[in-house]
Amino acid sequence: MTVATMAVSQAPVFALEPWMRSRLEQVERALDRWINADEPKGVGHAAPAALVEAMRYAVLDGGKRLRPLLVMAAHEAVAADSTQGAEAALRAACAVELIHAYSLVHDDMPCMDNDVLRRGKPTVHVQFGEASALLAGDALQALAFELLTPSEGGVDCVTQARLCALLARAAGSGGMAGGQAIDLASVGHHLNETELREMHQLKTGALLQGSVVMGAYCGAPSPVALAALQDYGAAVGLAFQVVDDILDVTADSATLGKTAGKDADNDKPTYVSLMGLERSKTYAQELLVQALHALQQSGLTNTRALAALADMVVNRAH
Amino acid sequence: MTVATMAVSQAPVFALEPWMRSRLEQVERALDRWINADEPKGVGHAAPAALVEAMRYAVLDGGKRLRPLLVMAAHEAVAADSTQGAEAALRAACAVELIHAYSLVHDDMPCMDNDVLRRGKPTVHVQFGEASALLAGDALQALAFELLTPSEGGVDCVTQARLCALLARAAGSGGMAGGQAIDLASVGHHLNETELREMHQLKTGALLQGSVVMGAYCGAPSPVALAALQDYGAAVGLAFQVVDDILDVTADSATLGKTAGKDADNDKPTYVSLMGLERSKTYAQELLVQALHALQQSGLTNTRALAALADMVVNRAH
Repeated sequence: MTVATMAVSQAPVFALEPWMRSRLEQVERALDRWINADEPKGVGHAAPAALVEAMRYAVLDGGKRLRPLLVMAAHEAVAADSTQGAEAALRAACAVELIHAYSLVHDDMPCMDNDVLRRGKPTVHVQFGEASALLAGDALQALAFELLTPSEGGVDCVTQARLCALLARAAGSGGMAGGQAIDLASVGHHLNETELREMHQLKTGALLQGSVVMGAYCGAPSPVALAALQDYGAAVGLAFQVVDDILDVTADSATLGKTAGKDADNDKPTYVSLMGLERSKTYAQELLVQALHALQQSGLTNTRALAALADMVVNRAH
Repeated sequence: MTVATMAVSQAPVFALEPWMRSRLEQVERALDRWINADEPKGVGHAAPAALVEAMRYAVLDGGKRLRPLLVMAAHEAVAADSTQGAEAALRAACAVELIHAYSLVHDDMPCMDNDVLRRGKPTVHVQFGEASALLAGDALQALAFELLTPSEGGVDCVTQARLCALLARAAGSGGMAGGQAIDLASVGHHLNETELREMHQLKTGALLQGSVVMGAYCGAPSPVALAALQDYGAAVGLAFQVVDDILDVTADSATLGKTAGKDADNDKPTYVSLMGLERSKTYAQELLVQALHALQQSGLTNTRALAALADMVVNRAH
């Protein structure tokens, strides 16, 4: 536990590991069940096995699942009891991971970052070919919205519609895809801190914040709690990117599970290139304090998983 | 008007042109308004202008807009009056076109069909680069779901959720993306008629049928009407592809607005390669009769636009 966490944490100390293990087990099992060719979807057609294989490869057996964990933790912080909105939260947790996974598949393609290693495995286009990677990514985005709109299973239509709205905005041109477009246009250009922050707020921040808000929404939050969790999500989203930039220069490829040093090689603007390594580290700790402060403002009592996740984001080694 | 249409049409003759002109005007105006960088989306961020420019290029000023027209015609066939569900139908019409447009952008990319000409213009990746084309397609898919889930504007949450469900299933691994994956895997392989039909039911049929069903849903259809319109949509969806295959060998590139003869060059299985040109033409007319028969079974009276659209699909020159 860091100084920042200790300064604002509430006793007793929260055991993040067992909490994470139990939530991850739920999420992994659900992803495994829902990305499947056997279950006919939509107008009664089964998805072709080869496409589903690429989709499963892109999503299963890998990744920190930070976004699903944020959904689950935010839901638990808000929900009056653990069953209220639990099915919706599990679906939202899987949906945000599908969006994240599709963005990685497309981002790794030769026309984008041209990366061959992801989560310690060959990237999807290396394994299945570029065309299959393109289609698998496209199908994962559609599947995210499919998961949010079950015809049966106890998610009311108001929640379904609201979750689709939040996810579409977090993923689209005013969110993740928009941030990637700015990132693409910024290679070799100088960005100041404001521009860099705006880029990251879209590219990674929107979906991370969206995960928190979607999870909260499944638990029917008060306006005060929702506003505080939005602030928490914004701080964690920004911190995630600052730490990503730090790790790109301080960690090696084996630890990261992807190619280290790529951003510097590609002349991409990063927090480290802008403000230096030490100030970047300080900034990450400041963002953690902001996130924990927002939780204190929320009026919610069950926020220890959210606090521990924020700490994990800032103080992770990969 | 063909023999097939005359056999089952209801007097008086329906004037498709003015109907289409007025609906297309609505759809074009709405697309122009909704694909826009000026309007902040989602968490309050505006979409970057360069990305929106590529999205607009991919969607505006081109295309037959068949899917939006099917949405509008199905809605009008079902709705008790023209205002009931009209906002939802217009949003659904634009959403299906965004999905269609994104699929063309990705389909034209070098790793897929590697096409340089679309609707008489350079394809998106030729005009903006591959990375921008990839992102523009991704963002268009997200925007489709954003359009279906407005926070204001008179579309109730039940309709929002149902439209998202239908669109996600039509677009995803059990629909359009799944069909494209089968198509990809089938190059150079022999498909029999059953396999070819299954491929097309996913690749183009699912979204065309989905357009009809989404439009109908906006007007609150009876179960009988919905089932009949599903049959209509299936027949029109299949007919569309059969005619596409016919035109690929009979029309020239200038008329098509895209490269003619590509399927044969790429050794792709088509209806023409499977059953020959003449039997393909007969089959298309049979499917038109099936579509018109379904309309008669629907119990609906205002189906003349749907009938005329089916006729247009089968007897079009491009």
